[in-house]
Amino acid sequence: MFNELEEKFKDECGVFGIYLNEPDSRTDAARSTFYGVYALQHRGQESAGIAVSNGHKIILHKNMGLVSEVINSEVVDELEGNIAIGHVRYSTTGESGPLNAQPLVFHYLKGMIALAHNGNLTNTVELRKRLATYGSVFQTTTDTEIVANLLARYPQDEIEDALAKCLVDMKGAFALVILTEDSLVGVRDQMGIRPLCIGILDGNYVLSSESAAFDTIGAEFIRDVEPGEIIVINKDGMKSIKTIDAPKTAHCVFEYIYFARPDSVIDKLNVYKARREVGKQLARQNNIDADLVISVPDSGTAAALGYAEGSGLPFQEGLMKNRYIGRTFIQPTQQMRELGVRLKLNPVYDVVEGKRIIMVDDSIVRGTTSKNLVNLLRKAGAKEVHMMVASPPTKYPCYYGVDTSRREELIANLMTNEEIAAHIGADSLNYIDLNGLFAALGNDENYFCAACFSGNYPIGTESIEEE
Amino acid sequence: MFNELEEKFKDECGVFGIYLNEPDSRTDAARSTFYGVYALQHRGQESAGIAVSNGHKIILHKNMGLVSEVINSEVVDELEGNIAIGHVRYSTTGESGPLNAQPLVFHYLKGMIALAHNGNLTNTVELRKRLATYGSVFQTTTDTEIVANLLARYPQDEIEDALAKCLVDMKGAFALVILTEDSLVGVRDQMGIRPLCIGILDGNYVLSSESAAFDTIGAEFIRDVEPGEIIVINKDGMKSIKTIDAPKTAHCVFEYIYFARPDSVIDKLNVYKARREVGKQLARQNNIDADLVISVPDSGTAAALGYAEGSGLPFQEGLMKNRYIGRTFIQPTQQMRELGVRLKLNPVYDVVEGKRIIMVDDSIVRGTTSKNLVNLLRKAGAKEVHMMVASPPTKYPCYYGVDTSRREELIANLMTNEEIAAHIGADSLNYIDLNGLFAALGNDENYFCAACFSGNYPIGTESIEEE
Amino acid sequence: MFNELEEKFKDECGVFGIYLNEPDSRTDAARSTFYGVYALQHRGQESAGIAVSNGHKIILHKNMGLVSEVINSEVVDELEGNIAIGHVRYSTTGESGPLNAQPLVFHYLKGMIALAHNGNLTNTVELRKRLATYGSVFQTTTDTEIVANLLARYPQDEIEDALAKCLVDMKGAFALVILTEDSLVGVRDQMGIRPLCIGILDGNYVLSSESAAFDTIGAEFIRDVEPGEIIVINKDGMKSIKTIDAPKTAHCVFEYIYFARPDSVIDKLNVYKARREVGKQLARQNNIDADLVISVPDSGTAAALGYAEGSGLPFQEGLMKNRYIGRTFIQPTQQMRELGVRLKLNPVYDVVEGKRIIMVDDSIVRGTTSKNLVNLLRKAGAKEVHMMVASPPTKYPCYYGVDTSRREELIANLMTNEEIAAHIGADSLNYIDLNGLFAALGNDENYFCAACFSGNYPIGTESIEEE
Amino acid sequence: MFNELEEKFKDECGVFGIYLNEPDSRTDAARSTFYGVYALQHRGQESAGIAVSNGHKIILHKNMGLVSEVINSEVVDELEGNIAIGHVRYSTTGESGPLNAQPLVFHYLKGMIALAHNGNLTNTVELRKRLATYGSVFQTTTDTEIVANLLARYPQDEIEDALAKCLVDMKGAFALVILTEDSLVGVRDQMGIRPLCIGILDGNYVLSSESAAFDTIGAEFIRDVEPGEIIVINKDGMKSIKTIDAPKTAHCVFEYIYFARPDSVIDKLNVYKARREVGKQLARQNNIDADLVISVPDSGTAAALGYAEGSGLPFQEGLMKNRYIGRTFIQPTQQMRELGVRLKLNPVYDVVEGKRIIMVDDSIVRGTTSKNLVNLLRKAGAKEVHMMVASPPTKYPCYYGVDTSRREELIANLMTNEEIAAHIGADSLNYIDLNGLFAALGNDENYFCAACFSGNYPIGTESIEEE
Repeated sequence: MFNELEEKFKDECGVFGIYLNEPDSRTDAARSTFYGVYALQHRGQESAGIAVSNGHKIILHKNMGLVSEVINSEVVDELEGNIAIGHVRYSTTGESGPLNAQPLVFHYLKGMIALAHNGNLTNTVELRKRLATYGSVFQTTTDTEIVANLLARYPQDEIEDALAKCLVDMKGAFALVILTEDSLVGVRDQMGIRPLCIGILDGNYVLSSESAAFDTIGAEFIRDVEPGEIIVINKDGMKSIKTIDAPKTAHCVFEYIYFARPDSVIDKLNVYKARREVGKQLARQNNIDADLVISVPDSGTAAALGYAEGSGLPFQEGLMKNRYIGRTFIQPTQQMRELGVRLKLNPVYDVVEGKRIIMVDDSIVRGTTSKNLVNLLRKAGAKEVHMMVASPPTKYPCYYGVDTSRREELIANLMTNEEIAAHIGADSLNYIDLNGLFAALGNDENYFCAACFSGNYPIGTESIEEE
Repeated sequence: MFNELEEKFKDECGVFGIYLNEPDSRTDAARSTFYGVYALQHRGQESAGIAVSNGHKIILHKNMGLVSEVINSEVVDELEGNIAIGHVRYSTTGESGPLNAQPLVFHYLKGMIALAHNGNLTNTVELRKRLATYGSVFQTTTDTEIVANLLARYPQDEIEDALAKCLVDMKGAFALVILTEDSLVGVRDQMGIRPLCIGILDGNYVLSSESAAFDTIGAEFIRDVEPGEIIVINKDGMKSIKTIDAPKTAHCVFEYIYFARPDSVIDKLNVYKARREVGKQLARQNNIDADLVISVPDSGTAAALGYAEGSGLPFQEGLMKNRYIGRTFIQPTQQMRELGVRLKLNPVYDVVEGKRIIMVDDSIVRGTTSKNLVNLLRKAGAKEVHMMVASPPTKYPCYYGVDTSRREELIANLMTNEEIAAHIGADSLNYIDLNGLFAALGNDENYFCAACFSGNYPIGTESIEEE
Repeated sequence: MFNELEEKFKDECGVFGIYLNEPDSRTDAARSTFYGVYALQHRGQESAGIAVSNGHKIILHKNMGLVSEVINSEVVDELEGNIAIGHVRYSTTGESGPLNAQPLVFHYLKGMIALAHNGNLTNTVELRKRLATYGSVFQTTTDTEIVANLLARYPQDEIEDALAKCLVDMKGAFALVILTEDSLVGVRDQMGIRPLCIGILDGNYVLSSESAAFDTIGAEFIRDVEPGEIIVINKDGMKSIKTIDAPKTAHCVFEYIYFARPDSVIDKLNVYKARREVGKQLARQNNIDADLVISVPDSGTAAALGYAEGSGLPFQEGLMKNRYIGRTFIQPTQQMRELGVRLKLNPVYDVVEGKRIIMVDDSIVRGTTSKNLVNLLRKAGAKEVHMMVASPPTKYPCYYGVDTSRREELIANLMTNEEIAAHIGADSLNYIDLNGLFAALGNDENYFCAACFSGNYPIGTESIEEE
Repeated sequence: MFNELEEKFKDECGVFGIYLNEPDSRTDAARSTFYGVYALQHRGQESAGIAVSNGHKIILHKNMGLVSEVINSEVVDELEGNIAIGHVRYSTTGESGPLNAQPLVFHYLKGMIALAHNGNLTNTVELRKRLATYGSVFQTTTDTEIVANLLARYPQDEIEDALAKCLVDMKGAFALVILTEDSLVGVRDQMGIRPLCIGILDGNYVLSSESAAFDTIGAEFIRDVEPGEIIVINKDGMKSIKTIDAPKTAHCVFEYIYFARPDSVIDKLNVYKARREVGKQLARQNNIDADLVISVPDSGTAAALGYAEGSGLPFQEGLMKNRYIGRTFIQPTQQMRELGVRLKLNPVYDVVEGKRIIMVDDSIVRGTTSKNLVNLLRKAGAKEVHMMVASPPTKYPCYYGVDTSRREELIANLMTNEEIAAHIGADSLNYIDLNGLFAALGNDENYFCAACFSGNYPIGTESIEEE
């Protein structure tokens, strides 16, 4: 039942890295990384970890749980070193044990190395088999371990050269931060599917999945890592290596719709602005007579404010969110069915009663939450409920590091818009269409990956591992 | 440092109770109480507990932690019975151990009894001494144990009569739910300082600090418990006993400003509407030229939307809240000072940059958060920052169950408005004044307790215990 | 199944107290008490606790678990004060929650007081009712809370006088240590059923259930607290108050048989020597031709060595004990039935094979373990197994603070010796008889309570609470 | 301080494995393995783990802690499969984290494989380097991971052939149990340094470090795995592959002195009998006039009983052991120095006072415990204390999987026997000599490894890794 409320697509990870030239304290790198991954917590709540190097040795701490549960002062005090990487993880079902928590640390011929990864390789079956043929063993089911084994094949090379050779073999979506004993490395897949950006803090370089993490530690955003670019940061500063050139980029459009923090800037686009523009565009495309605009908090709020702006209708908080929803939960009985939603979201009668309402949400996956919310609003006295969705219908699964439902569970594959509207009990239901989305974001399918809406996968998916 | 962000006044508790005539399952009462206190979690995050009676025996489960941490399915399965009460607690410093967690359960001459309490007696020193003279011993430092000892002096009486006799001695603010072996009892102090209301669910009566908890379990709000009223619910239905009559009521005005959920209705006033009206009133009183209105989320948002409505200025989300702030936290070093605020709230550059901003917050206690936020907005490029506070200056401590700072810490006692504006770096600072507040809420000091603003304490505070 | 191995009678508690005149450090009292209760851990493994006073205030730490789990360095660092008491508890079923863990701390008219108790009052029903009639409420089901409520009736008296008055009402077995804000008090019931003794450490007085705890902290044993004696230790030294005189003593004989540590001296009798003498006496009474003597470790070893000495037969370790048996355990399936015993005790083939064996155990309760062990020895090749029990048949429950099985579970009430021998598969079975036991211990029923063997209860048991 | 009492040599691990042909329940293999490692708990208390295969997939559960802490009913319920291996671990300092807990599970070209290891390879530096040159990465610092990587080099071979090839490279001491998807494999180093034996339970084969684990599950001992032998157990039964032949065996003699359970039979020698014979031999070699023999429990007891038998002196329990010593402990202050020993061992005055005592211990490492115990005995009134050590002086570190102290910490390297006697305060000190030991055990250095006494290392130690 809680899954109904949690039925959104899930981003799988957030990564962070920092290289301090002359830290004030031996734990400053770990401390900053703690703040960094804290700011990226929305990208994964399953496990968290930090690895640091003091130039000679890598120390690791990771565990299942939130950053605030996994990392405390005692832990930070142990993590001495001037270079650090961090990771937060959301995993797909089945393989979510502590062994798969990241970063992963490896000893290889050149010493120690730690990796933290956001994304999904699409040729892991083939890569794992090829590596195993030459004697590799695997202790996890992560792509990260595959990358480490690929890297270890080039012990004679500098890390950037080894990595460039690995990129030839690695297909799919990935934003990686790598910690060697004396450097911090970042790399992004050749179409830039998953985000990674560069910041600077008092002359020290920082890498992060999202720019909001830079704000948290007081660093300034410099630029995104480019598709296919390798960034090496060490005592000599920052070096950029451009690898294979792709004909187009394929930045994940869902980062703007739902995954990223509204206060992040990703691939030159401000996320909050993007959502607001989508809301405005929705208002432009749909001219529905209503009394007010409400949002499904928190992810629908920016688009709802855009819609209010575009339509001239007032925005109000029609649904109140309980801020204390924990991870464990007691199932309601059959008669208490509605409780799950009400525990999390409750209508404000004074706002809703007797009103014709536009309810804006960022996306619909299976429609269960929408149905419950429309029902709640009606019970609270809403005269009309018109649902606006700030993304096109999601019809296709993602193979690039996102946990989407299976195709047959996506309601947009099962019903027409009208049927969905009837199913959820709304007076009307409108999605933004793909062109409208691209118009609002100011770019098109040559810039974004919108495969979950269009089915146009930028990278072949034939060899995708069935896990 | 986190205290800076958590510097709000703290409500001390939330209470809930339910009497099921013919429950479908033996744990339905406990289950509903779980949902009820879950919905009241914002009233106390320190400890939680549920006590149930099966008509013969009371069983208790309580512990330190959030409701979702303390109560799980295994716990509910043990809590068999058709009557239940629940409690969430925030305590003042010093005495926050598990012994003081509530409900408290007692054996006395008539059997077992459990009590859960929101509020603060103002004559505990005297009561404790009087009881001890007659041989009472105390294992906790709670007011609840005092009430139990008072009750036990009248074992020959029906619970409502015993309670009526106790009320003669009990001074201060209290909303109590009491579980006897075969009844559920609610009582509210004679001026109705702390809230308590009655709901109904399929013919079964429910008591709660706030009506939003009724929504969560699907119950309907009936009415508030009246000041000085005793409500007894048992197999014969609900009975009301009116006790001592007070010349005025003194409903805590801060419930509307900050404590209560916006989706609750308390003493006939919708909380969300109250906040929005305060925002409108603020806009009416202050005519400042600006580009947009933002709020300090989440508590300032309703007033900010009211301000936007009143002023005609657009509302935007200028500060993003990290939804994953945990209870433990690693202190930043001196150089990282700002991080604490940024971890929790981060400006949205695209919204803020180059703009003249009205920032609305519900209240100011020590001013530290306000200062940090103004600073963040300026760094993000805000041209002007005008702060609007949706409550009058808080100048007086509360003795009625709220954890306020000491007088000398309240910034409004230390500086003029202009000095505060300068201190926090705002271009201007405006509070709503007390008359404006009363105007917005549609009632005055004969209805509300506004002692934290006015110093007019409705009950003498001479004998207040120094703890 | 583990109960089969744990089927012994259970002592319910151990108590300890210390008064330091001029401690070197503010936590020395707590630290010594930690060592003291550590040494008494065999008397109760369910909960542990320490309370300290610094002359003004009592601080308490207690929890479910072993001493080493409940008390750690951080805990001790908080427990500042020069007077301390400690407690370990084994409880009978049903009421073993943290609320009942001891010491219990109370506020009463004279300030704070903490109590720790070993034993069982036999008139609790009556006392609780009498107290409740005058308004007492009870939060636990412990006798200790009753004693505190009794004491609180005499707030005008010095602690020793108040206690003397309470003794008039308290029936049953008790060894109590009490911590007031400025003194340490010990008291023992008027027949001295449960043990309590006095030691000295560099001029500081110490109280303990057993003298072995004195060895652990380097204190010297002075003497036992006498039956009905109150010991008050404060800045003026130690004071003894003799109260009601009983015609006889009734020291629990089972302390010598099983409960106490072999290295303790209780009521002038060395426990190890007592067990050894019982073993010798057993050998004297039974002249069985055999090859060697083995014991059921660890509690049967001293008697087995005495038997070997008395009989001239060699002693060997025929059963090996696994030292790592934890508290949780996975139930074996039906086919693995024997495993429970074998996990804990395993025969040494080389010792046992082809031999005629005397197996000595301290007592038999339900006979299940004995049966399993005889079976194991036979499977390991023993030619004959003769069981010797170092106590008379246990036929009566104990009402004085010991958890014995119900009468109908005690095998000695169900079968003759011959039947038991047949039931457990032994070639012969011999108990020491009551006269033999008294002969070995050098005293008789005017000195000991042997009610569990004889049914002669030294205090009336009519009013015993059915819990 | 506790290290003083825990100053014994530490065995590093225990292994167990079972192959069930037709299990009654899907968790029988895991359940039996739980009992097996429970019985081997004395070989390692740091971490525990079980891996099972259902013919297709290997599932693993492991963690830091005792078997009873790591494995519970819920865990066993998850571990479905008919083949299982288990492991308990004691690790040397530094690398004792959960990553190094065993079994380790690997995916390689042929599927999944799990390994559990007791022992120490002596050429790990060389092996790790050689493997890394070909691209291997390492996530742990265990020898086990090296073996897995070696095995993965021969994916085309049957497991027994791959293992035979690995044995060519593996130097040192090892007893390994390996779980493939459809078989259970055991292997022992070519000199049989660490123990491993074969049992049978209703037609199903079992492997274990010690035979006592067979008793626990009701299995019968068949024979030891021979040095250099590979045992493969699968649906076709058991197969033996003899590999490289060594000119001598080198069974660890310390297993008989201290490591193994007295109720185990290892390499055809009953451990209890071995200890008793050593005690007899000690009595033969030393004719000291005394009143009684006591042991340092529990490890010295078998030898003490042998000594008593050989000398005709009576054996008594002169030192009582506290059975509840936990893993955490509060440091006594300087003045409380003796407490550490007394908490664990306390003299029985009645036994010791006025007596001339022979105290038998199994070995001396640094002499600190011995010194404390002699001191305790004297304080308890012992007239003379003569120490007998049931092993020769330990002068050399072990490189074969045992955690010995560094050479300069071993008291036998620092002082003569007379000096040690004076140092520990004994009236005399006698070790058994190496010839005496061999005589008692009935074999010599061609059979045993006694390098810790003689310095004659059976395998070159040049390339031993400095960790």
